[in-house]
Formats: sequence, C-alpha cells, structure tokens
Amino acid sequence: MTELTLHPDRLFPADPVVRDIARRLYQQIAHLPIVSPHGHTDPRWFAKDESFENATRLLLLPDHYVFRMLYSQGISLESLGIRRKDGVAVESDYRKIFHIFANHYHLFRGTPSRIWLDSVFHDVFGLRQTLTAASADFYYDEINRQLNTDAFRPRALLDKFNIEFIATTEGALNDLKYHAALKGSGYEKRVVTTFRPDDVVDADRADFADNIAKLAEITGEDTTNYQGYLQALRIRRQVFREHGATATDHGHPTAKTADLSATEAAALYQKCLAGNANSQETELFRAQMLTEMAGMSLVDGMTMQIHPGAHRNHNSQIFQKFGPDKGADIPSPTEFVSNLKPLLEKYGNEAALTIILFTLDETTYARELAPLAGHYPALKLGPAWWFHDSPEGMLRFRHQVTETAGFYNTVGFNDDTRAFLSIPARHDVARRIDCRFLAGLVAEHRLGEAEAAELAYELTYGLVKKAYQLERL
Amino acid sequence: MTELTLHPDRLFPADPVVRDIARRLYQQIAHLPIVSPHGHTDPRWFAKDESFENATRLLLLPDHYVFRMLYSQGISLESLGIRRKDGVAVESDYRKIFHIFANHYHLFRGTPSRIWLDSVFHDVFGLRQTLTAASADFYYDEINRQLNTDAFRPRALLDKFNIEFIATTEGALNDLKYHAALKGSGYEKRVVTTFRPDDVVDADRADFADNIAKLAEITGEDTTNYQGYLQALRIRRQVFREHGATATDHGHPTAKTADLSATEAAALYQKCLAGNANSQETELFRAQMLTEMAGMSLVDGMTMQIHPGAHRNHNSQIFQKFGPDKGADIPSPTEFVSNLKPLLEKYGNEAALTIILFTLDETTYARELAPLAGHYPALKLGPAWWFHDSPEGMLRFRHQVTETAGFYNTVGFNDDTRAFLSIPARHDVARRIDCRFLAGLVAEHRLGEAEAAELAYELTYGLVKKAYQLERL
Amino acid sequence: MTELTLHPDRLFPADPVVRDIARRLYQQIAHLPIVSPHGHTDPRWFAKDESFENATRLLLLPDHYVFRMLYSQGISLESLGIRRKDGVAVESDYRKIFHIFANHYHLFRGTPSRIWLDSVFHDVFGLRQTLTAASADFYYDEINRQLNTDAFRPRALLDKFNIEFIATTEGALNDLKYHAALKGSGYEKRVVTTFRPDDVVDADRADFADNIAKLAEITGEDTTNYQGYLQALRIRRQVFREHGATATDHGHPTAKTADLSATEAAALYQKCLAGNANSQETELFRAQMLTEMAGMSLVDGMTMQIHPGAHRNHNSQIFQKFGPDKGADIPSPTEFVSNLKPLLEKYGNEAALTIILFTLDETTYARELAPLAGHYPALKLGPAWWFHDSPEGMLRFRHQVTETAGFYNTVGFNDDTRAFLSIPARHDVARRIDCRFLAGLVAEHRLGEAEAAELAYELTYGLVKKAYQLERL
Repeated sequence: MTELTLHPDRLFPADPVVRDIARRLYQQIAHLPIVSPHGHTDPRWFAKDESFENATRLLLLPDHYVFRMLYSQGISLESLGIRRKDGVAVESDYRKIFHIFANHYHLFRGTPSRIWLDSVFHDVFGLRQTLTAASADFYYDEINRQLNTDAFRPRALLDKFNIEFIATTEGALNDLKYHAALKGSGYEKRVVTTFRPDDVVDADRADFADNIAKLAEITGEDTTNYQGYLQALRIRRQVFREHGATATDHGHPTAKTADLSATEAAALYQKCLAGNANSQETELFRAQMLTEMAGMSLVDGMTMQIHPGAHRNHNSQIFQKFGPDKGADIPSPTEFVSNLKPLLEKYGNEAALTIILFTLDETTYARELAPLAGHYPALKLGPAWWFHDSPEGMLRFRHQVTETAGFYNTVGFNDDTRAFLSIPARHDVARRIDCRFLAGLVAEHRLGEAEAAELAYELTYGLVKKAYQLERL
Repeated sequence: MTELTLHPDRLFPADPVVRDIARRLYQQIAHLPIVSPHGHTDPRWFAKDESFENATRLLLLPDHYVFRMLYSQGISLESLGIRRKDGVAVESDYRKIFHIFANHYHLFRGTPSRIWLDSVFHDVFGLRQTLTAASADFYYDEINRQLNTDAFRPRALLDKFNIEFIATTEGALNDLKYHAALKGSGYEKRVVTTFRPDDVVDADRADFADNIAKLAEITGEDTTNYQGYLQALRIRRQVFREHGATATDHGHPTAKTADLSATEAAALYQKCLAGNANSQETELFRAQMLTEMAGMSLVDGMTMQIHPGAHRNHNSQIFQKFGPDKGADIPSPTEFVSNLKPLLEKYGNEAALTIILFTLDETTYARELAPLAGHYPALKLGPAWWFHDSPEGMLRFRHQVTETAGFYNTVGFNDDTRAFLSIPARHDVARRIDCRFLAGLVAEHRLGEAEAAELAYELTYGLVKKAYQLERL
Repeated sequence: MTELTLHPDRLFPADPVVRDIARRLYQQIAHLPIVSPHGHTDPRWFAKDESFENATRLLLLPDHYVFRMLYSQGISLESLGIRRKDGVAVESDYRKIFHIFANHYHLFRGTPSRIWLDSVFHDVFGLRQTLTAASADFYYDEINRQLNTDAFRPRALLDKFNIEFIATTEGALNDLKYHAALKGSGYEKRVVTTFRPDDVVDADRADFADNIAKLAEITGEDTTNYQGYLQALRIRRQVFREHGATATDHGHPTAKTADLSATEAAALYQKCLAGNANSQETELFRAQMLTEMAGMSLVDGMTMQIHPGAHRNHNSQIFQKFGPDKGADIPSPTEFVSNLKPLLEKYGNEAALTIILFTLDETTYARELAPLAGHYPALKLGPAWWFHDSPEGMLRFRHQVTETAGFYNTVGFNDDTRAFLSIPARHDVARRIDCRFLAGLVAEHRLGEAEAAELAYELTYGLVKKAYQLERL
C-alpha cells in the first residue's frame, strides 16, 4: 500500500533558487478566494443543495477527461455506465465501474486528471493511500460515506472551497429556474449564469428552427424576421443579466466573423431559418452573429467569450450511441487574424468592450493572439483552455504570450469544469504554475520579486474580477 | 588533440536533483535489449553476414543526415562520392571523402548526428580522440581495420548491440530473398521484414502501372480490376507475414483517408491504372488505400504505421542528378483531424486494431494527435520522427503529448535508420531523454519514482513489444 | 523609490552550473563590436550628427512596441502624441506624454521592451532608480539634459556603443542623400544603406504606377515594358551598392515565389502597371519579383533578405487616422515549402548566393526552415524576428532550429530597430541568450566548452560578417 501525499512543492521546479521564490510568491496568494467566471457546474446543485449520490456518479460519469482515456485503451463506454441514447442497458453497478477506474488508474500518469483526482482524494476526502485495485473498495465506501454528510452538500462545499464567485453556463432558451430559485438565498450573486446562445445562432443544428420558434415563444418577439430575432436575443441577454450574468460565451467551430449589411444579414437569416443554407452560409451566419453579439455587449456591458476551434463529436459512432461530450471533441487548426478582422474593424477599438479569446491551437499564442491582444483595446486573452488546462499547457501559454501581450492583457484562470470537487485543485494548479513562471523571471533578473508578488495577485484575483466585471460585486 | 569522451550524465539536466533521479531511472533500463520495430537496415547484411567495406561507405554514403548538412554548406554531392544517375564519374577516393567529412565535422555541433557519430566512434570503435582534420587518417584506417575483423560482421554486431529484434522495410514487390535466406539460421524471428506498399498504391509514380503488372505476376491475381488488386495485396501481406512481418508501413504525402463505395473505388482504380487520374484523384486513391489497408490489418492482425507529411525530393536538380533520399525531403504542414476521419469512422473504434501515427509537423502533437490517440482505441502515437528524432525533438514530443494522451498511448522508440552502427546510440538517446523527462515529473512531485521506473521500462521495452505484437516472440 | 539595477547574471538560468558556463562564454564575447546588418535607424542622424530633441520624441514616439501596448490598454494614440494624418491636433506636451508612459510602465513587465528600456535608462543615461510616476519628471529632465550634450550626438553614440557597422533600410526610389553626405566623412563604410524595393514591386500599393514612373525618371530607363523595368532595378541596385549596400530586403505578405516565362512575366507586369491586376495577380507578380531579385543578387553579389508573413495595418481605423507602423501589424501563418520552390528550383543550389529567411510563424522553424536551410546551399536562417526578438523567442529559435540546421546555417543577430539607443541592449540580450543556450549544451555534455566558445564568437561576430559579406570591410 503506497501512501498518498501531496508534496507542498509540487509543480514547482527542482532548482532550489527558483523553487524558493515560487514558494514565497505562492504563499502570498494560495489562500485567496476562488473566482470561477466560466464553468459547467449544475446550478441545480446550488439551488437544491442536495447530497451527491456516489463516487462514480459524481467523479467519473460527468468527466469526459476520465472516460476518454479509459476508452482509448479499449474499455467500452457501456462498461463505464455511460447511458446509451437507444436505452440499451449499460453497466449500472457503480462499485464495479469504480473498480474498472481504479484498475486503470496508471493510465493517468503524467496527465492533469491524475493531479486533480489525487488532490480531490487527499484534500477533499482526506484519503491517505493511493488508489489501486486493492484500495478501490475502501475509496468507494469512504467517499460515499462522506458524500452523505452535510459537510459535503453543494453550498457547504462552496464555503469549504472558498469559492467567492462561480458562473455556470446556460443556453439562450434555458428557463434559468435554478438561478431564479437562488434569489433571496444569499447565493444569487455568488452563483450566476452565463449567456450561451449557440443553440439559437448555429443553423447547422437539427433543432435550429425549433429553437428559433421557442425563442419567439419565450420572448414574445416575431423571430420570423431578422430584426425580431435580434430583439429576442437582446431580451434574453437582459433576462440572463437579471440572473446575474456578466458574460456571454460563444463556442464556434472557427473564429470567423462577418459584418454584413442589414439586408444581407436578414436574407441570410431567412435562408438559415428555412433550412436552405449550405455549410458556408451557416458558417457565415455564425460569423455575422459574433459581430452582432459584440455590438450587443457594447450596449449591455456583458463581457464576451469566444471559444473556437473544436471539431465536436468527431466519432460518429460514439455520438450516435451516446450523444455529445463523450471525449470525442478534437481541436482543429484555428486562424484568427483574417477571421476576426470584420468584428475587429467594427468594434476592436472600443476600450469599453471586453472580448476574451480562447484557443485550442497553441500555434496561435505567439503568432496571432498575443499580437492581437497587444494591440486591440477590446481584446483580452483567456487562459490555457481544455486540453491545455494543465501544467505544461499553462507554461506554454505564459512563455508564448507574455512577451508580446504582457500580463495585463490576460484575465486570470478559468476552471471550465463540471467536476465540481476538482475546482480547488484546478485553481491551485494554475496558481502554482503562475508562481513558478514568475519565479523564473525573478531568478533570471527579468522582474523584481515585489513586482512578481503584485502580478501573482493580479493573475489569481485582480485581473479576473476586472475582465468579468466582478469588481462591483 | 582533444580527448573524445562520452560523459555518463550526457543528455541529463544539470540540476543535481533531477539528474540524480534521471541517473537512477536510466540505470534500471540502460541494459535492456534493443527492440527496433521500424528501420531501414539492409536485410542482405544479416543474410550474408559479410564484412562492411570501409568507413566512408558504411558511415557516410548512406546517411543523408550527414551529406545534407555538408551540401547545405556548399560541398558538392559529387565530391562526397554520391553516385550520379547519368553515370558521370564522382569522387571515388574514399579516404579523400572521409577527409572532407572530418574537415567539416564542426558543422554538426548541436545536431543529433554529432551525438550518434561520436557514440559510434567511442563505443563501437573505441576511439579516444575527437575527429578533426588531424585525426582523419587515423580514424579512417582504424575503423577500416576493425571492420575487417569478425567481431564487426553484421550478426556479431547484432549480438554486441544487444538487438533482440529488428525490422527492415521492403516494398510490396520485393522478393524478400534475404529474409528467406535467414530461415533456419536462428535469425528469422530476430530480423524480419515490414510490408510497405507505397509503390503499388501511389499512382503518381511513373512506374505505377508496371508495378501493378508485376503485382499480378507474382501473385497470380488479375490486377486489372480492383477486387483482384485488393486480393493480390492480401496475398503479398500474407507472404510478408510468413517472412516475419508484424507491421505495415505507409509513407504518404498527407494523412488523407477516404471511404469510397466499392463502385467508386473500382472506377478510381481504373482511372489510376490507365494513367488518366489527376493529382486530386491519385491523392484520393492513396486515401482510399489507407482505409483498405486498415481493414486488411483488422483481418490479418498486422500493426499499421502511417508516416505522412514529407514533401519528397523537393530539389528537382538533385533528384534528377542523384535520385531520391539525398537529404532534400522537407516536412509540410500536416492535418489529421479531417483527413483521418473517414478511416476512423470505419475502424477507429476497433480495439483489436493498432494504427501508429507519426508526424513531421510538431504543431499537431498537442492539437490533434494527442487528443485523437487519447480517444480512439485503434490509435497510438509513434515516437518523434526523422528531423525530430533528437534530444530536443523527443522532449517536445513528451512535453506536448503526455498530458492528453498519457504514456500508454505511445509505443516506445523507433530508430528508423539505415545507419546500422548508430542504432545503439539512437536508442540510448531515447532512453536518456525519456528518463530525463520522467525525472522532471518526479522532481516536481507529479509522479512517484517507483511509477517512473515502471514507465521507464514501458517506454523502453514494454510498450513497443505490445504495439508491434512482439510479445509472443 | 526602488533602485534600478541590471544584474550581471540577467537572462542566465538560475542553475549555478549552467549559469557559470554561460558567464564564462559571455565574458569572452560581451565586448565584441556590434555588427548591425539590418535595421531602421535614420541615416540623417549620422549624416547631420545633430542632437536628439527630447526623451519622448526619441524613446517613445518612434517605438511601436511601446505605444502598441499602451493602446491595447485603452490609452489613445492622440494622447501619446502620435501625429494624425488629417492634421487634427494631438497631445504635444512631451512631458505629459512621458508621464502617461511612466504611469503605465508596469504594463511592460515580462516584455522585451522592459529589458531594453531599463538597459537604456541604466547604461546609456546612468539612471539608478526605476521609472515610476514619482520619478517621471526626474527621468524626463535628466534624459533631456544628457541628450543636449555632445556625448549624445549620433556619431558619438556609434563610438560609445562600439558599433562597427550599421545598415539602414531605404526604398528603391530613395535619393540616398544622407548616405551620399556621409561620403568622405570616414563613416561611409560604417553606416550603409540596404536596398528595399517593396514600393516598386508591390502592385497592391495605391502609388505603384507613380513609383514606376519615378523609377523611370531617376534611372532613365523605359519602365513601361518589363525589360526596361528590370534594367531600372539593376541600375538602382548598383546605386545602392555605391552607397555601401551589401544586402537587399524584401517584406512580402507571403513567401510565395514564381518562375514565369519572360512572356508571362511581361504580360503580368503590364496588367499590374495598368492597375488591372486582381489580388492573385499582384501576389504572383511579387512572387515573380522575388525570383528576379535572387537572379540579380547572383549577378551583383548582394545578400538577399526575405521577411514574409506580416499582415500589415490590420486595424483600418488606425491606419486611416495615423498611417502605417502603429503597432497594428499582425503575423499570419506562413508557408515556405511550396512557396519557395520556384525560386529554389532556379537558384537554391547556388552556393555563391545567400538568401536569408525570416519568419513570424515559429511553427516553421523546425518543420520547414531548418530542413530547407539544412539542405539548400543558397539558404540561411535569419534570427528570431520582431515579436520573437525576445529572450523566449530567441530560445525557441535555437531550440527548434539547431538540431536540423546546425549553427552554421544561421547568420547572427539583427536588431531591426529604429530605437537607436536600444541597440546595445538588444545585441546584449542576443549574446546572453546565445551563451545561455550554448551553456545548456555544455552542461548536458552535448558540446565541449571550447567548442561553445568558438560558437559564441561565431554567433556574435563571425557568421554575421560572412552572411552579409562584411569580411572585406
């Protein structure tokens, strides 16, 4: 039986000079509250405050990082209890599933999932032996036992985790009932929504026309014409604002933007709505809508996030059997310089606007994103995203972005997760890596240590509150 | 005269903490047998077991890494003794050529060729002074003297180098006579072939129709129709199997795959065979054939290797004068996500299939390859290839691949070389770099040292035997 | 008040072993003369030798690295005194502008501008406190006081900075009057021009036809036909040669080259000249002209520099209000392997020709540029350029280029700047980073220290003089 430990110097470099500086910087920011401005936790948890069911349903089933890796090594999703769309039965013995996971825990060596999971086991559940086939039952029982206590209900965990602010993400048609339920609870400014309109701007979706009809229904606007559609979106943005949203989010296949004339845009909308648009036209419509959304952000003040470049549901067999978000989204090469130009020509010089760019294509960090953010007042750079939300990924981000964009055109950390229990670990990794990066600059006499300490605070707490407009909260 | 030394800590980092861990890991795997599942040594060497001729013919003339660099600095290929296709005489004084090489040995500073060559000089020939103009004659005479001894005949070197397994690479039409000659020698499972059908699937080749005719001849199939052609390929695969092959290899300009209907594929084949296909159609045919080959691998169990992205023979003058493989192959941007989709839609979910992907475009490591291999059961990632088979290249591979694909979706090291004497040095570089990478994780408390030791074994010996199905040997 | 110091070990790694080697290497080359073969200083400075006006006009207004960053954080260019094209008044209180800069000096943390500026403050002006709002007046007054002394006139600074050679860059139509004025001054071989013909080869420019007419006027050639146009260019190249030029420079949107027949090229030229060419045709004309220029270089012996890949003036609002070079040039993905092929097919094998390639797309370092330069005799690689002229950028260049291209296919450092006072700091950063990189190789036993010392000299002084043909000077 091997002891599970989290070394106090983990993720710091071995060099004693750099490590000592990193330690000192980290000690000054380790206990700052967590600000989580972008993520995918379930607002129901915070509204209902019910206990989580069991280790498998909480830690494994929602985490596509975990079952992606198991699947890649030949373990079927059925055996992991992932629900099939056709209703065919899948493994429902959660203990058995947890055993499969434990038996293959070595697959995660060298991955961020391993860091997050070990942190959850050690810090959240107080486990002190490593996860192996031999300890699987003990893990499963002990985690379940603790999940049933009051200390592990969602609101208690918000406190335990020192989460000052957390944003969830909802589609434009969401009724926001859980956020509504939070009103008056004292949590309504701590847990807020984010406006994500992909389902009503992406005409490639099979349900696009239905979604537009629903949009009409819930807003009372006539969405059969473009102006009514835009007005309906403005109304929905306002409703999200009233449920605490300070930001919008846009997940598009590419970063393409457009600035069509009102007539062209209206005609394109009709074509999309009628289901007659080809894939170039639906792409152009999404592109136009990014620019429209930037314009709306300038009016209503919401920070705009753009997450381009994922080829969603690359594996059709998996998508047909199990649906989306099953670990089969693959990054694609992403171009920003030409694609963002129409939007930037119109709104890039607006200092009152904040557009946060993310990428899955790290080649754009130094080549495109840092130069763009180091010039346009409206642009800021989001942190290393998704596959790159990892020690190496974060280091590459800082190493490739900082010299051209500086630190002040970045916006702190996003955990972007539905794995609620891993949130402290994820923020801790970001804090450690940022302190390590800063310590390197100090050790090489490229930055004073007092400046580095100021920056550590900004990267952890100051910049995120500014970028997402949380300062007034 | 400068002493030639190979420092025991070479390629390990200077930091004493990390270096000591790297040393400990390395000591546990340094003496493991060499498994070389992909390379270009000449099977004749092992079949005939004759002495190598001289230092120039063995070390320089076959090594395009070496004369590429000399040529880039204005030294003509003629003066290096590279044979011209038109029969015009070139330098034939091998001692003189060796002198040119020695005089320019400084050009290799900082390159992997320098590491490999110094290792060969030091470890294989026992030389203890550096190669310079002054030592060139001594080198030349001493190497030639040793090459003439029995200890330097190919089979003796296999033992000396502790090579447990080595695969050569032969075209689909090769008569495999040297592998046949090995039968009964006790070497037939130690030296095997690999099925490389590029010459019968690439309709851009001037000799394509001739090759297809030969394919008919040696298989007895009617290759004038697509089904006969496919059957002929199945037969050849079987013959290669009988000569020990456990793998196929596919060197294509791009990673494009296709899944045409049987009718479409047959029509395209006719067009290619008639010489009427344009470059898009020959590309589509190669794409279709990758998918067909994956299907055949699923049946006959051979591991499939895909090596895309080299722009072959970029320098037409050199190609016309000297032919292929003269250091003028240049990597190109390579896209995998869309290009592999047709093949993956058909076979990507097959856990019984192993497809190993290589790339010359490092931007795809973190963006495309690691996410693909971290999801699809059929995919694994080959090691850093060709220009990237180097200390920095290997480090970039591990740093960019591991967090998303883990270690267990990789397949150990390939030396991919025709420079037989450098094989131990190449494997040693890979072992040192892997141990160094693992040591970094241990020193930063991201991995336990016992786990790292397990991984060092896997990266050196375990994973390659599994991926190339050598476990039963 | 914080003390401004420049640590003697700045930019060296913290590890004491590597740092000590880096120190030893650096001490051997730190005081070598500066050779600056590519830059944008104003030849008028050296011809007239007048005092610089004030800190703001010298240090801030010409430095788009500086106001780019300020602008990205919402500070208007008007408030920074950047002249508007429409003549609308902008801030003209230079002290006030200097205060804005001082108040935002924290934005440059982690950027190379910070290193260069601190070095100028400390080493050139002897300032010993950091720049802050509180010290801004002292800085402004003290810098201005010193600028008014004889020791700070341009020629005195050339001596103070130990600049042995500096090339400026002039357009093909420039009258070169300042270089003419230098003749007989003793500076005419120390300050020379570079031939940059973009204004007469880029038919996308609004003034293209006018420029061609001027070209006719100053050369006496009939530029209404292609042969006359080429002859006029040959004449201008000769005039530049007579003003000391040893090199040409070509700033193109892409690396595209072409090798049209004389008839095709002449017809394309007519179309461009008549203003009837579309964007593909103007691109093709630029492509053809790169190949023509390479041919002329082979005749007149000038080294050719190609700087592709900047999307110039990305921000139309800024361009319309303020003109070019306002920090709104953004790098784009750049392809070399196919694009350079026509030129390389014609001239790539010429060992007498030197073509130096630069890139803003770092993904091409290991994938395309190092393999090309490691093969073609005519190609060399320029240093990390523009956004990548920074500690991290230079390290990435060496790490990604060296193993395939070696050191001897590179050409030393370019400062590429109009910020004259920062030239020593920029060269010092390059020397430190090169020594650091070499020290890493020595510490890991990949290179001997004596070899590293030889290389440090070559990277600082030897290779640049060879590549730009300054050895005979």
